[in-house]
Amino acid sequence: MAEYVFGVDIGGTTVKLGLFDNSGNVLDKWEIPTRTDNGGTNILPDIAQSIQDKMSEKNIDKDNVAGVGVGAPGPVDGAGIIHKAVNLGWDEMNLKQELSSLLSGMRVEGGNDANVAALGEMWKGGGQGYGNLVAVTLGTGVGGGIIINGKIMTGATGSGGEIGHIHVEDEESEACGCGNYGCLEEYASATGITRLANRKLQASDKDSVLRQGEVSAKTVFDAVKAGDELAIEVAQQFGDYLGKGLAVIAGVINPEIFVIGGGVSKAGEVLFDYIRPAFDKTVFHGCKDTKFSLATLGNDAGIYGAAKMVLD
Amino acid sequence: MAEYVFGVDIGGTTVKLGLFDNSGNVLDKWEIPTRTDNGGTNILPDIAQSIQDKMSEKNIDKDNVAGVGVGAPGPVDGAGIIHKAVNLGWDEMNLKQELSSLLSGMRVEGGNDANVAALGEMWKGGGQGYGNLVAVTLGTGVGGGIIINGKIMTGATGSGGEIGHIHVEDEESEACGCGNYGCLEEYASATGITRLANRKLQASDKDSVLRQGEVSAKTVFDAVKAGDELAIEVAQQFGDYLGKGLAVIAGVINPEIFVIGGGVSKAGEVLFDYIRPAFDKTVFHGCKDTKFSLATLGNDAGIYGAAKMVLD
Repeated sequence: MAEYVFGVDIGGTTVKLGLFDNSGNVLDKWEIPTRTDNGGTNILPDIAQSIQDKMSEKNIDKDNVAGVGVGAPGPVDGAGIIHKAVNLGWDEMNLKQELSSLLSGMRVEGGNDANVAALGEMWKGGGQGYGNLVAVTLGTGVGGGIIINGKIMTGATGSGGEIGHIHVEDEESEACGCGNYGCLEEYASATGITRLANRKLQASDKDSVLRQGEVSAKTVFDAVKAGDELAIEVAQQFGDYLGKGLAVIAGVINPEIFVIGGGVSKAGEVLFDYIRPAFDKTVFHGCKDTKFSLATLGNDAGIYGAAKMVLD
Repeated sequence: MAEYVFGVDIGGTTVKLGLFDNSGNVLDKWEIPTRTDNGGTNILPDIAQSIQDKMSEKNIDKDNVAGVGVGAPGPVDGAGIIHKAVNLGWDEMNLKQELSSLLSGMRVEGGNDANVAALGEMWKGGGQGYGNLVAVTLGTGVGGGIIINGKIMTGATGSGGEIGHIHVEDEESEACGCGNYGCLEEYASATGITRLANRKLQASDKDSVLRQGEVSAKTVFDAVKAGDELAIEVAQQFGDYLGKGLAVIAGVINPEIFVIGGGVSKAGEVLFDYIRPAFDKTVFHGCKDTKFSLATLGNDAGIYGAAKMVLD
């Protein structure tokens, strides 16, 4: 059995790379810039070059590499074809085949970045020990990755787990980035929490520390911890949307655990105090015992999950 | 390869049985009563006896039977254990093991009835040609079965696909059968449509054929087809709840197709005229092409899917 595996996480600004042993220990990790000019045509050659350089540096033979896993920001179907990665300048790209041919036929596996990160959290992060999980990333947007029986649920066209765009509010007048109105992402992302806070600040006369300086998801949850009433109302709104949304997902998927990551999750376990009431109130009784945990791998979840795709 | 397979669908009143060849042609089908007295202890022995009688009648040797698939009304986990089947009087029952030992070790596979029916519709019904589908049963309640890559998605505790109990309405004062308030089932089932119609009749002064005689899902959709304005408003409400609910499910699962069955589906394609507007308006753009079809196997979906479980 080959000793090594590479995990690659392609972001809009940088590509993260990791060299792992086949037990999942990270031996090295590094980054290269993502060159999105020229329709992103340099991205895969740059990755191939970086992997080859690392193999030379570490004296690793090709036969001793199980393969390369890649997570990319766009819908990736079961064949490893990515359909439109707007942030990379790609239209349609056969990730598996293209990168493999740049690496003299080395095995390559590809997946959507959020799904791949979910696999990473299952393997070595907040979801260890669970084969059925939903990873929820509360960042600039809301991303999701669904793992069923230890495998990524890709969906028919690579849109499985796009939980940021489930409809949760009929009365929204501001459009989501996706073009719809009332998506979960509009209330549960970092930008969403800021939106809720600014609306609340405008609608209410209540005093609040949030009235001093710029509002962000971080300042909201810092204020929540300090007992700020208005911030607590914002957290309740956030938790109501997210708790109800996750309850629906639980009723559909029946996972063992939700693993919550992304920038907003830095607020910590206090998030669960606001998510659980709406979740518990609306979830199907057969799914009441669904667990919640915090993601632990941070920005490394992607390279871990990418490596795991190859080892599976 | 064994030539025959049995499919069994255990209902609260009758058990449906089918004898299939291994290509999925039904050779015989029949029913026996479900004896739910004495904690349902006779149900599996009755089924075993009925299968053995059929084998004698048809001169079928045990070695020529691939196995017996069973669908049952309750959450069935991956190991074939059913956890509480209230309608049968069962608490916890190892379906696979118990029935197999009553059949001298014959192979038995077990699943939740709604999930098994979904598999049947995929194999020989309205979902033929699709490996990623959600079957939606609009009957007395709303049931669901989810198929991912040709396999039933059981969920962690057998509650996968319980889509009747996803929360869709915050302002509901009447409890659902499950104990929660505002479940999809309260508006999209036959009883739900009747509820919506009765509320509308009470709240509105509008003339309607629904004011004559008893209201049911059938009379509502008959009236819709006859152009009755009030009935059309009811159908719009029904379609709004169901369309939005299915859009959420699409965003989570990204199936190729929704297969709509159950008594309400007898109204026919007109249902889609009311479901699609809310679906199209709220679904994530990557899932906009999700197809809709009507189930075609009716009450036989369960025995087909049960047989298919064994052949997989």
